[in-house]
Amino acid sequence: MANPKKLPARKKQPLPVHRLGIDMGGTKILAAVVTPDGQIVGEAKKKTKPEIGPEGVVGRIVSAANEAVTAAGLRMKNVAAVGIGAPGPASPETGFVFNAPNMSGWIDVPLGDMLAQRLGLPVVVDNDVNVGTLGEFVYGAGKGRKSMVGIFVGTGVGGALILNGLLVRGARYAAGEVGHTVILPDGPLCGCGKRGCLEALASRTAIERDVRAALDAGRPSSLAELILADNNRLTSGTIKMALEQGDELMTEVVGRAQFYLGLLAGNLVNILDPEMIVFGGGVIEALGESFLDPIRATARPCFLSQRDVESVRIVPATLGDYAGVLGAAELAGRAPRIEGKEDNG
Amino acid sequence: MANPKKLPARKKQPLPVHRLGIDMGGTKILAAVVTPDGQIVGEAKKKTKPEIGPEGVVGRIVSAANEAVTAAGLRMKNVAAVGIGAPGPASPETGFVFNAPNMSGWIDVPLGDMLAQRLGLPVVVDNDVNVGTLGEFVYGAGKGRKSMVGIFVGTGVGGALILNGLLVRGARYAAGEVGHTVILPDGPLCGCGKRGCLEALASRTAIERDVRAALDAGRPSSLAELILADNNRLTSGTIKMALEQGDELMTEVVGRAQFYLGLLAGNLVNILDPEMIVFGGGVIEALGESFLDPIRATARPCFLSQRDVESVRIVPATLGDYAGVLGAAELAGRAPRIEGKEDNG
Repeated sequence: MANPKKLPARKKQPLPVHRLGIDMGGTKILAAVVTPDGQIVGEAKKKTKPEIGPEGVVGRIVSAANEAVTAAGLRMKNVAAVGIGAPGPASPETGFVFNAPNMSGWIDVPLGDMLAQRLGLPVVVDNDVNVGTLGEFVYGAGKGRKSMVGIFVGTGVGGALILNGLLVRGARYAAGEVGHTVILPDGPLCGCGKRGCLEALASRTAIERDVRAALDAGRPSSLAELILADNNRLTSGTIKMALEQGDELMTEVVGRAQFYLGLLAGNLVNILDPEMIVFGGGVIEALGESFLDPIRATARPCFLSQRDVESVRIVPATLGDYAGVLGAAELAGRAPRIEGKEDNG
Repeated sequence: MANPKKLPARKKQPLPVHRLGIDMGGTKILAAVVTPDGQIVGEAKKKTKPEIGPEGVVGRIVSAANEAVTAAGLRMKNVAAVGIGAPGPASPETGFVFNAPNMSGWIDVPLGDMLAQRLGLPVVVDNDVNVGTLGEFVYGAGKGRKSMVGIFVGTGVGGALILNGLLVRGARYAAGEVGHTVILPDGPLCGCGKRGCLEALASRTAIERDVRAALDAGRPSSLAELILADNNRLTSGTIKMALEQGDELMTEVVGRAQFYLGLLAGNLVNILDPEMIVFGGGVIEALGESFLDPIRATARPCFLSQRDVESVRIVPATLGDYAGVLGAAELAGRAPRIEGKEDNG
């Protein structure tokens, strides 16, 4: 409609389109400014220092956010919204992080409100596995798909579900805990207190437990030296090296982990019938595509529907450390979000 | 808008509101006329006679449909739409039944088209477990909820998922096959060819296998007589009777089935975090509410999130045989549907 009274000319302010994606981990915080088509134009990294408590950590998140925005040649007012993945269950509706294991004092922390106030921007909070899976879904291995399960194998085994393009969060924000499905009743103890969870059978921690037990029992293996040379740690890199050297113990232990990951993949396909299963996390990143072959070989015969079986794709994640910030930026463009003070006024 | 030319008065035809729900099983067909608020106002039952092939069975479905409509004091033109649950994977988008085990000749049958042509009404097709779960969700145990998993224990173990009020059908219409999740690697052989599926551990068939093996091995039990008295069958009714008599063998075998059903429930809660799990099917109907207590006792400690744990409800189905026709009638009101010839013209 034409305006009857001509208003004085005003410099047009472009609407902000960039989003800020933040991946808050137990050891480091990664922040990135992301364009609407998923290009990272500025990023910053900081140590989390979880021992300083939520107020302190939020301060470090804000610093990382400011640095990333500066690196992008922007100012905070040029950012449309903020998304953040937290290392624990969280509610996008309220912005609360219910708890974050290994982080001092993170019980029912209103992270969304705290960040929205400090940054003056709308904030969306979710847990890091949901956020990383969303990143892979929109910009990585799952690009162009409608449904996908993300399984992340590292110290533990986490997971997240996307159906019809949307994250399945669950009635209590507890969906996607595929690492805590019992797959071997009366199997090894899990950190959660149950026996035979997938996490107790196939995580890096489970692999390390079995390797150390075998070494302690005197089983010959090149691993004793490799672990000693790496400050008595069994990292994903050492696992890779031992496999490449053809170490029998590691081949056996990893083969068992792959078998259970294959059963998990088969179970998830039979339950959810997703288009694809994406495996990510430290172990997968270190061992690469070939790590998935035995998983596929175990999973495929499990599928109840053998119709169109080749269309069930089991693939590695492709974004590595950037899945989190890209997923968080995507999340920032999806409701609901916690509005900043300025936006409420 | 006012019509400038006055049209001749015409008797107003009320829009049809009733829906026809059909449950097509391997042994019987149940058809019911259902009001928009879920009241059954007419029903009919016919034997399926699966040996006569798809054309013949569709004829019997049409007869049952006509009888149900007549019983409701209506004519087919007073029915808004038809929903049908088929005993096998099916596509609501195309109306095809991909296959129906135990039914002669049911491979890629265009059931939606066939029925739409014969009845002159829009038809929606889905598999019977999805349809029964939808019935329980809308009119039965799940009334008022947003998410639910249905687990049906009978000859086999079937399942279906409802999230955000919608059935999860999967990328290949194969979702919800919870009975074919491996829960005991290297466990007993399942009909699907795998070992250790839930169905091979907790179905009526699995219970019967273990009971007969024990009797064959000479284990003393009242069951030998009970089975003989029931034409050498082990029905859900006999299972109930043996449990009530305190039969040790049956108590042990059923206890094991309950343990695995509990692990399944725990796994599904950790994967999907639904508001509720509804157990239905012949075994549950015969054994009643108390059958669920050991399942709950096993499942609850499995939940990774113990926050708000009491809010995860594990309950019996309430609609029995009517879940299918009520769910089918509900389905008839939901898109997509295969339009009848008359509606295409």
